[in-house]
Amino acid sequence: MNDEIITINHGSGGRITRDFISGLVLRIFDNDVLGRLEDASPVDPVRDGRPFMTTDSHVVRPLFFPGGDIGRLSVCGTVNDLATAGAEPAALSAGLIIEEGFAVKDLERILVSMKTAADEAGVSIITGDTKVVERGKCDGLYINTAGIGYVHGETELSPSRIRPGDLVLVSGPVGNHEACIICARENFFSDARVESDCAPLFGLMKSVLDAVPETRCARDPTRGGVVSTLTEILEGTGFGIEIDEDRVPVDEPVGAVCEVLGMDPLFMANEGKMLVIVPESGAEEAVSAMKRTRYGREAAVIGRVHDTGSRLTLRTRYGTSRILTMPAGGQLPRIC
Amino acid sequence: MNDEIITINHGSGGRITRDFISGLVLRIFDNDVLGRLEDASPVDPVRDGRPFMTTDSHVVRPLFFPGGDIGRLSVCGTVNDLATAGAEPAALSAGLIIEEGFAVKDLERILVSMKTAADEAGVSIITGDTKVVERGKCDGLYINTAGIGYVHGETELSPSRIRPGDLVLVSGPVGNHEACIICARENFFSDARVESDCAPLFGLMKSVLDAVPETRCARDPTRGGVVSTLTEILEGTGFGIEIDEDRVPVDEPVGAVCEVLGMDPLFMANEGKMLVIVPESGAEEAVSAMKRTRYGREAAVIGRVHDTGSRLTLRTRYGTSRILTMPAGGQLPRIC
Repeated sequence: MNDEIITINHGSGGRITRDFISGLVLRIFDNDVLGRLEDASPVDPVRDGRPFMTTDSHVVRPLFFPGGDIGRLSVCGTVNDLATAGAEPAALSAGLIIEEGFAVKDLERILVSMKTAADEAGVSIITGDTKVVERGKCDGLYINTAGIGYVHGETELSPSRIRPGDLVLVSGPVGNHEACIICARENFFSDARVESDCAPLFGLMKSVLDAVPETRCARDPTRGGVVSTLTEILEGTGFGIEIDEDRVPVDEPVGAVCEVLGMDPLFMANEGKMLVIVPESGAEEAVSAMKRTRYGREAAVIGRVHDTGSRLTLRTRYGTSRILTMPAGGQLPRIC
Repeated sequence: MNDEIITINHGSGGRITRDFISGLVLRIFDNDVLGRLEDASPVDPVRDGRPFMTTDSHVVRPLFFPGGDIGRLSVCGTVNDLATAGAEPAALSAGLIIEEGFAVKDLERILVSMKTAADEAGVSIITGDTKVVERGKCDGLYINTAGIGYVHGETELSPSRIRPGDLVLVSGPVGNHEACIICARENFFSDARVESDCAPLFGLMKSVLDAVPETRCARDPTRGGVVSTLTEILEGTGFGIEIDEDRVPVDEPVGAVCEVLGMDPLFMANEGKMLVIVPESGAEEAVSAMKRTRYGREAAVIGRVHDTGSRLTLRTRYGTSRILTMPAGGQLPRIC
């Protein structure tokens, strides 16, 4: 099917839709529950687990970028949103909106990428939906995923639990995803080799929660980056956070892109990073726990919660302090 | 905000996104869980209930039509997919993809419509996501909803449970949604007053399941209509179904549209109808149970399962028999 394209009939609900789902989607996603093609699919319930739900639509441009593609992104985004609650992913749904004329071989590559990411995260795509819209009514492909996950034991993560003196951890260098998208879109810095960090993070969160059950809260700094995410965490708490600029890990090629474009990695989207706030007594343990996992090797403490003003501030490398405010808009549209 | 429009920044994750979500979306959807704005939201678990999940993306054109709009459709579609398993809806997610320039007042109307339908179905929208794409990269608004529902007691609905002699019921007249979309889109028959049947059906299903616990299976005949849905039900069973043309309820204005356009209501999409297969002994009870509910007043037995050939056939009003096969494509794109 190398030069096949998606037509309106692939989404019309007739025999062509049916053959397409059976022939391509079921072959790739390959699980019995989805294979039944029922309108609703059973989720393996987790005894004594508390269910959580999340959703994200993905409209990233370009669809393929170094380090990932919209398929990997759509699985990791939802798995990571569940992980912020400490929820182990139990089931995913996938809703595809495809533009007429889209290449079947590109779709196949993206579906394989979803399956690979889901396997890595230990979750199955158990239900889905395909719609096809006319040329010019979509930009190739949009993917929505929703997810159900279960929180085990006593875990209760919430910004309302943070206290002055708590430390702020990040699981690795920041800014990679957005820097990668900028480079991929504009053909900038093609020799800079900036890759997206797109990765599923429940394993990392589990490692932290096992090591430090008193962990306060977690958020993945996607759109708006570290600054927007920490601003949201602080809302309503009355506390402030000071970030230490020198401690924020930034990969060298990402730093180079930022320098040339005048962008700040603290405001840039990540797709495989977690911000975690823990009591000071658990910080060392939590960093070690992250470092033992595949996506946490460069984890670091980057800041501290305080009660002298409810602001997010940056202690710069020159020793001065700067207030960080959530930007009104984004630096770049359609990064996820 | 009467002449306000959606801009790229409404979806960029910064302060404008935040204000938009707090000011419009939270005000309308109005529930505490969503209000926390966490990345993942807790679902009220149902003790001894078995969880089911489903998803649907909605790309209907036009966005507003007699009897509903994309908002009502997006809630009913997912509630009804859960209902086919006998699952009571417990939580919904909403993923909005909005085209830059979309009118805020139209969005508000659609969100209110989602909320009204969710209230009617007894479910809350507990998590969501908003993306904005550039002009020309979407057709106004696409909505994905996913849903979690719980099946109570011993209910186990599956096509594998149907047996020869079982009767096929429909909860009311067929073809209304697709006929309505045709008329709305083409400005045909503006005096025919064809309305979409778009409605949430868990209440109807619950009534049937309480009356006839031995109910075999259920499906809502959306894209591809009654014929595609029954064809899918028969797949792999080895049995056939004969529909009695005279017994299939069709509203008079829908019949008129079909006659003029040469379309067949049995192939047309419904958004507020359920096909249910029950043992013959329970058929009368099941029809009565449907008739007692708001959306089942014109429920009828329309056919019978048999073991003389695995085909779907129609006994016409002239007494002849005609084979019904699933069409290759659809009669009309983007009806849901």
